[in-house]
Order: sequence, then C-alpha cells, then structure tokens
Amino acid sequence: MNTEQPYLLTPGPITTTLSVKQAMLQDWGSWDGEFRAMTAALCQRLIALVDGERSHVCVPMQGSGTFAVEATLATLIPKQGKLLILMNGAYGQRMGRIMDYLGRDYVALDKGDYAPPRAHEVDSILAADPAITHVAVVHCETSSGILNPVAEIAETVVRHGRRLIIDAMSAFGAIAISAREVPFDALISSANKCFEGVPGFGFVLVRQSALEASQGHAHSLSLDLFDQWQYLVKTGQWRYTPPTHVVAAFLQALDEHAQEGGIAGRHARYQRNQQRLVAGMLQLGFETLLSDEWLSPIIVTFFAPGHANFDFQTFYDRMKARGFIIYPGKLTAAESFRLGCIGQLYDAQIDAVLESVAAVLDEMEIPTGAPAHALNAQQN
Amino acid sequence: MNTEQPYLLTPGPITTTLSVKQAMLQDWGSWDGEFRAMTAALCQRLIALVDGERSHVCVPMQGSGTFAVEATLATLIPKQGKLLILMNGAYGQRMGRIMDYLGRDYVALDKGDYAPPRAHEVDSILAADPAITHVAVVHCETSSGILNPVAEIAETVVRHGRRLIIDAMSAFGAIAISAREVPFDALISSANKCFEGVPGFGFVLVRQSALEASQGHAHSLSLDLFDQWQYLVKTGQWRYTPPTHVVAAFLQALDEHAQEGGIAGRHARYQRNQQRLVAGMLQLGFETLLSDEWLSPIIVTFFAPGHANFDFQTFYDRMKARGFIIYPGKLTAAESFRLGCIGQLYDAQIDAVLESVAAVLDEMEIPTGAPAHALNAQQN
Repeated sequence: MNTEQPYLLTPGPITTTLSVKQAMLQDWGSWDGEFRAMTAALCQRLIALVDGERSHVCVPMQGSGTFAVEATLATLIPKQGKLLILMNGAYGQRMGRIMDYLGRDYVALDKGDYAPPRAHEVDSILAADPAITHVAVVHCETSSGILNPVAEIAETVVRHGRRLIIDAMSAFGAIAISAREVPFDALISSANKCFEGVPGFGFVLVRQSALEASQGHAHSLSLDLFDQWQYLVKTGQWRYTPPTHVVAAFLQALDEHAQEGGIAGRHARYQRNQQRLVAGMLQLGFETLLSDEWLSPIIVTFFAPGHANFDFQTFYDRMKARGFIIYPGKLTAAESFRLGCIGQLYDAQIDAVLESVAAVLDEMEIPTGAPAHALNAQQN
Repeated sequence: MNTEQPYLLTPGPITTTLSVKQAMLQDWGSWDGEFRAMTAALCQRLIALVDGERSHVCVPMQGSGTFAVEATLATLIPKQGKLLILMNGAYGQRMGRIMDYLGRDYVALDKGDYAPPRAHEVDSILAADPAITHVAVVHCETSSGILNPVAEIAETVVRHGRRLIIDAMSAFGAIAISAREVPFDALISSANKCFEGVPGFGFVLVRQSALEASQGHAHSLSLDLFDQWQYLVKTGQWRYTPPTHVVAAFLQALDEHAQEGGIAGRHARYQRNQQRLVAGMLQLGFETLLSDEWLSPIIVTFFAPGHANFDFQTFYDRMKARGFIIYPGKLTAAESFRLGCIGQLYDAQIDAVLESVAAVLDEMEIPTGAPAHALNAQQN
C-alpha cells in the first residue's frame, strides 16, 4: 500500500502510474516537429477509439474539461439554435450556466439529483418543440455516479433529425462508444479521467461536417473550437501554448491504456473494482444511492451511515490518514459520499479501502454489518 | 551540453530544471487540503512579488496565457467600456481579436512590427477620447523582443483617470514591477515564462476593488475571472479542475526563483545572457532589429543573413541537431529569427549557442564577421 501518496478515490484527478508522470521529465518546443507529431498521434488514436476515422476529427482544448464543454456548445450551436439539456446532476446544470453566459436558447429536462433521462421523455420534448436543434447529455454524471442511457437517447435524437452532444468526461476510455452506432456530433472528454493522464487539457471528437459549418459561432477567441481546428490543420500545432508535459503524459497513458486491452480492458478492471467495492460496502452495512442497473464503473454514491457518531470530515481525515482520499457527496436530500473506481486501483487497493472503512467506522464507534441508512433510493 | 533534450531558445515553453519537472512525480486531489494550501501559497507569493498585498489579489486561470488575457479583458472592461490597445506585434493584435469576439468597443495605437508606443501618443489619444476607460499594453512584446515603456505609459494612463491592463506574460518574474509605483488594475502572466515553470495555466494579479466591481461582465463561464475568484475565496479551490502537476512544478519553480535572488537575480542572469548573446552574434556579423535601448533581456530578434545560401529551415534543423531549438521571426518586412535568453541558460549554453551558429553558418558556406544584413532598423 501507498501511504506516502494517498490513492485518489475520485472521478479525476486520479492516481496515475509513475511511468505516466515520468513522461513529463522533459521539455518540448510546442512548434517543433517532434511535438507536432505527438499532437497528431494523440488525435489519431482518440479518433480510432470511437471508429471515427471517416466522420470525425479530434480537437484538443487547453484548460479543464469545462473549457472543452463550453467551447463545444459555443462553437456547434448556432446563435439562433436551441439546446435541450438532459440534466441529472451538477454537470448538466453547468451546461445550463454556460448557455446563460452564451445568451442562447435552451430548455432542460431536469431529473433532479440522480434519476436517468429516458428516451420516451426526450421523444416527447423533441416532438413538441421543432425549434430544438441540439441535445446534450452527460454520459456518466459523477454527481451521483449514474451511467445515463446514451444509446437510447442517441437513437431518439437522430430519429428527430437533431444533433447530439455527449459530455463523456468521466466515461470515455472505459465505456465503449462508437460513432458508427451512436451518431454523435461531439463527444467531449479530458486527459485525467479514464485514460489516467494528468489534468491540463480536454478534447472534442467532433463530426467534421458539423465543425466545418460552425465558423463564426463562438463567443470567445480562446474557446473557438473551429479556429483551434483550422490552426491545427494548417500548422499541426495547438493554436496557443499547449500544456506540453501534460500532453506527453497523456501519450504514455494512451500506451498503457492500449496495453491493458484498450477500452474493453480498462472497463473490465473498473467494473471489477466497482463490484468488489459495492459488495464489500454492502457487507459493512452501507447502501448505494442507485440500483445496480444504473451504477457506473466510474464512481459510486453511498449514503452516509445514519448513526449519530458519523461526521464526514472525521471520516475523510481518517481515511486520508490510511492512504485514501475520498470524495464528498452532492445530493441535496440526504448525506452521502462517493468512492471512485478509476485510476491506478486494483484488487489490493479495493481490499485496503474496505479494510480502512471498517477500521475507521470502528474507531468512530459506528456499528457495521447492518444497513447503515434506512432511506431507500427512489429510482426511475 | 545537453544533446538528448535540446535547449529551447524561445519565449516559452522554455528549458526548466530537472527539479521543477520532478515536482510533478506525484498526484494530488484538487479539493484536498494539501493542494488548497499549495494554491494559497502560489497566490501569496506572486502578490508579494508586485508589492500588491494591500491592493491586489491573484486569480489563477487554467489554459494558456491567452486564456488569462481574454478572461481579464472580458471581466474588467464593462460591456459599455472602451479599450485603447497599444499594439506593436502579435500579442497586441491578439487583444484586438479578443475584443472583436467580445463585441466591445476599442481603438488601437498600432506602431507596426516593433516601434514602441510612447507616453505622448497615449496622452493625445486619451485627451481626445474621454470614452476610453481602459488601456492595455504588452510589457515585453516577444514578436520583436521589445521591452515597452510601461512606466511612462502607466503614469499617463493614471493621470487621465483611466485603468491600465498589462500583458506581462514574457516579462514578469525577470522585469521588476511594483503595484505601488506602476498603478495597474491587472498584470497577466503565465507559469512557463520567466518563472521557469511548465505550461498549463496563467494568472492575473488584479486590483481587488476593480475585480469586486466586475460581476456580470464576463462573456464566458470558464473565463469569468470574477467567478473564479469568488470560488477561490469561498473554498480555497480552483473553480474547475486545475492542472495539479503543473501547479506543483510552479511552486518548485518559485522556490528556485527565490534562491536565485528573486526578480533581481533572474533579471541579472537573463540580462547577462542577452548581452553575451548579442555581442557574440554581432561578432559573427548579425544585426539586431532593435537598438540597445529597446532590447529586452527576454528574446532578441536578429535579421537573417542577406546571403543567398541562407535558408531558415536548414538553419533551424542544423541548430536543433546541435542541441538548440531556435524561434522563427515574426516581421512582415524582412526575414528574421529570434533567440530567447530565458529558461535554464547560463554562460556555457550561450557560448555553445554562439559556437553552433558559427559552425552552422560555416556548413552553409555563409561568411561570418561582416554585417550579415544591410537593412538598418528604423526606431522611434
């Protein structure tokens, strides 16, 4: 076990391999041929992972994932367009805030803290409102840890002739998605989630025809995805200084992703982490917010024990002292916390997490083994 | 000499120390107390470097330096404000493009490729146009390498009761500037210039009273400096995922900056690099674009040799083979190239640069020793 550097049980930044971090022990000139080749390789490999070679292009964007989401919405949705946002947590809500800044029209299907948006609901809204041009959905909404039903939503959106934008920040790299089967105009993700790179940039896999039609839409020079792409095509360079070291780490992370068996291999490990984690936590008396059907292999929300001795900060500090940084919950209705399954976590770490939770509860004099919280999650 | 990893003779990314890069060999949770303390230290130390403790706050911003410039212009200049941009190169022009995206009013004093904007010119423009609320200037315009006369400009701007925004991207850390003497509303810089960190974020040292009055100005959620600051004040965290490893590298870089004697020490080394580089290049027959008065210790533009055998790409490739990545010129009127003086460059490296230039010219059968280019720079 790693006690010097705590494991991050979170949806990113996550614990990366030493070899990924060691890839940063060099400096690059961002306009030099060597770095241009690194950028080209990054884009080609990401496009191949969604079978997008004949339809999509990759545009990396400096900043956090939110920068890439804002760049995508602002560049792809025309000023007279209208967006339907499928909200069930913080990241859907954030897309609403972005649209407020942009001053462009949108409606939300707001399912609250964790209920999934369903195809029949999207179908009704699109049938009733022909002004809607685009639909945005969060693939894995880490607020609750739910894996939203993107395939059924995509089918509905396309049947209505609208365009789909997927915020796949915390899912891409571990949840398979093919542009041939799920016809998205844009899929957005970032370096420091399931690919297990370090944070510093996001990227958008975007349908080339949609991007070609997007000149003049963006509200911001820095976040103009069209302009970023045009410069990349013309020069092979990022338009403004890229986080060179973070890019190098990401290329190493892509190598390690491939060595693990690509998306299928990464998914299998995360899925096993989640199943072992949930089984162990249930044995300790915890309950998950979501039913098994909706649990993602990315992060799981657990209700806090209903016991009077439970205090989140104490639980956090004691878990950290044992080498694990956990993540607070985001529910409005009940106290909760989240445990991530992604990053450099294997059976040994999951076992140690469970042992630590048991020991910390014991220290806090909270009994284990019985259901820790009486509230049953209401799910759709 | 380093032949495995070429030295970067550029205005950033630059060659950093191994210890700065080694600071990235760890993962951090961005909401954890440890990382919050790192962010607080970063801000405090930067504010202290401009004597801004009682007037200014530091707001870091993810992305390249341009993201921080756009965030600053969009947040500080009200929608009904008007900006005077002092342009003499690419970075001033870029501020014009940002204002075009923002749809806010501006005028430019455009001095062309390299002539400095002078106080008397600013004085005339401000006297004639009371609608101008803000003035923006680039401290070191790396397009030519000129160090613009920020002090005389600041005095004029303040005398007219207008607000000053300084893009000090390539200058801060090596050129002393005090908020007590140069009354700026905002000074913008980034991690990977004179502080010798790695690229991934910028920061703004901004007058607190100006920032407090800026709510609702920004056009973009991601680039809303006011919102970024409010979140930082409330939580001690960056609003969206920060480039944690890049931040860690920057803190190490700040330590090494202090060990070198802070801004004065860093300036002395860069100044010596520049003087030795220019002297050596003159001996080889090169001419600088600028007269000594306007040369910065950051980067110097040299005219390409007028000789028929000179070809920039060949020169670049042969210099790279000898361990130095040089930088192309940006002049419209004459062929040129640039050599940076910043980053991990000392006497030994400058000597090696000069030896390499001599050897490459010899290989290209271009005589050295006589003036290599007849064009005399016209300067103000």
